[in-house]
Amino acid sequence: MVGAGQLARMTCQAAIGLGIGFRVLAADAAESAAQVCAGTRVGDYRSGADLLAFAAGCDVVTFDHEQVPGPQLAALEGAGAAVRPAPAALRFAQDKRAMRERLAAMGIACLRFVTVTSSDDITGVAAARGWPVVLKAVSGGYDGRGVWVCGTAGEAADVLAHARGHGLELIAEEYVAFERELAALVARSPAGQGAAYPVVQTVQRDGICREVLVPAPGLSAGRQAEAQRLALTIAAELGVTGLLAVELFETADGLLVNELAMRPHNCGHWTIEGSTTSQFEQHLRAVLNLPLGAPGLAGRHAVMVNILGGEDRDLHDRLIHVMAADPGVKVHLYGKVVRPGRKVGHVTVVGDDLAEIGDRARRAASYLSLGTEQASAG
Amino acid sequence: MVGAGQLARMTCQAAIGLGIGFRVLAADAAESAAQVCAGTRVGDYRSGADLLAFAAGCDVVTFDHEQVPGPQLAALEGAGAAVRPAPAALRFAQDKRAMRERLAAMGIACLRFVTVTSSDDITGVAAARGWPVVLKAVSGGYDGRGVWVCGTAGEAADVLAHARGHGLELIAEEYVAFERELAALVARSPAGQGAAYPVVQTVQRDGICREVLVPAPGLSAGRQAEAQRLALTIAAELGVTGLLAVELFETADGLLVNELAMRPHNCGHWTIEGSTTSQFEQHLRAVLNLPLGAPGLAGRHAVMVNILGGEDRDLHDRLIHVMAADPGVKVHLYGKVVRPGRKVGHVTVVGDDLAEIGDRARRAASYLSLGTEQASAG
Repeated sequence: MVGAGQLARMTCQAAIGLGIGFRVLAADAAESAAQVCAGTRVGDYRSGADLLAFAAGCDVVTFDHEQVPGPQLAALEGAGAAVRPAPAALRFAQDKRAMRERLAAMGIACLRFVTVTSSDDITGVAAARGWPVVLKAVSGGYDGRGVWVCGTAGEAADVLAHARGHGLELIAEEYVAFERELAALVARSPAGQGAAYPVVQTVQRDGICREVLVPAPGLSAGRQAEAQRLALTIAAELGVTGLLAVELFETADGLLVNELAMRPHNCGHWTIEGSTTSQFEQHLRAVLNLPLGAPGLAGRHAVMVNILGGEDRDLHDRLIHVMAADPGVKVHLYGKVVRPGRKVGHVTVVGDDLAEIGDRARRAASYLSLGTEQASAG
Repeated sequence: MVGAGQLARMTCQAAIGLGIGFRVLAADAAESAAQVCAGTRVGDYRSGADLLAFAAGCDVVTFDHEQVPGPQLAALEGAGAAVRPAPAALRFAQDKRAMRERLAAMGIACLRFVTVTSSDDITGVAAARGWPVVLKAVSGGYDGRGVWVCGTAGEAADVLAHARGHGLELIAEEYVAFERELAALVARSPAGQGAAYPVVQTVQRDGICREVLVPAPGLSAGRQAEAQRLALTIAAELGVTGLLAVELFETADGLLVNELAMRPHNCGHWTIEGSTTSQFEQHLRAVLNLPLGAPGLAGRHAVMVNILGGEDRDLHDRLIHVMAADPGVKVHLYGKVVRPGRKVGHVTVVGDDLAEIGDRARRAASYLSLGTEQASAG
């Protein structure tokens, strides 16, 4: 697995259970997965030579992020490496414009957008659909962000100027007053087998996923099946191997595709305790062309809440309190240095009563996050 | 953790989730846990110097087996290492005679035994209780065995001669016609907190654990509570920190203690999927003096079946068939070289119908074990 963040760390845990040899390509030995993986190699994911050297020891190469440049991916594939998902599929998780154009060509409802060549393009969207307008980097971002919600032409002009300074292309998208955000997580193997997890509701604040409710409360069976079918169709049409997470807006008019990711995803962390097959095991099974595991929800409900770094860098002392207060919460820590707002772990609770387990998960995550806005709100 | 077998391997998985630094002391880098643990140190668990060097980098030292010699344990403790369980407790998992004497002094029902100084001691047991007589090494064993069920005086004399050749002390124990074997698994922390898992039934053949049924079918609530209380009492009286597995015989006259282990145990592998807190996480929480996790059974039933090595050394090809046949079984492979009769993995199924999940778990394990007696029987 190229990349050594928390997704690779949790995939490493799953690989141990499957008896599969597992390596990560880490930027440095202190990264989240590099700390725990016996097969850590240090190298630069932007370097073709480092990628080729890493791939030489692997049967299959997969990713914990979408940042490997297209030419390097093509070179890996050209050298005979089994790259999963393949570059031709991964492109649609890397390039937001290409993804939207491709899905639109498939007849799938996406948000309306234009490519930004000048500020006129932005004001054009505002004239047609009103402010705010959402600006997105086609690929990557700067200052850790790739999405900006602009309430005025002045704000939009600022973002455009900064983006140009960073060499970023932008698209401008209508702002949709969605009812809520959903995510459909599916797996697809090279053999074409597919498996769909229950559709979940994700709750975001300031562009960061805060919690995931499983299954999405009150979602009709028909709407759930529609979202799962949509994700499986996208996976098959784009030739995805491994996991595909489809982030959706639920609106009065139906479902709109917002983003795609082709890797284990924050919306699926609940599967470690909540499903027969965790998303990390499922990703490995899929990219290795093993038969997929059962993706069902084991209990009646699950709630996952992210732990964001707070003012207090000592998570260990806080962990003791959380464990003592509630022996049934599952805390996952990523071994990352605590910085305010950074995802440093998550909490999952599985149970019969959604309100009760949600309270417990939020309380635990809030205490571990103390000093953040989340904690003060909790 | 001293030792790098499958227990250390699965403890390593749990440590990753807790964000805890974890090291193993392995005899060589190919051992089960050494393959996957980023913190592997190679050394000899019988060497005081190797143990001290290993402990120097650890806050707490614990074990995946009972083989570290007493003097070396004492030296570790004397050097200031936090050894958990402490040598004074661990002794009762290392020395079967000391354990039986201690439990008897506590008034706990154990099997009757005598120390074997000559073959007369064995025939004395047979005269009083009949053949067969069970001979057990006080510590350790030879040819991978430490227990011999002898049907005749001739068989017993052979075992005694071999044991003397290996420098082993023996005890001779009455053979008990038990109804079934149970196991009570509990955790105890240095702070004195205890937690008890549901009592399970273990099924052994040829002295090897084949399967575990959770909870023990048909066990009354009173008998379960009795077994849990017994295990918690032993843990407290002996000053155990970490896990304590108490292997029990259920007889017409009640429960008899057979063996003790102070570490994660085969009878608790089902907890990975079947309990809120896996035994591996619980052992870490206990030895680190963290509050213990909820030990309840998540579903209605769980069945764990060991995978024994068969004639076919290629587990991977067999794994594909098992995964395709039943996407709901959880297969754990230990990365060990397949040898006939060796524990190389296990299968767990959790569900509502004991007979159905038992069939599924046995079928999967049997196929992965093909070539063994178990497989031909299945």
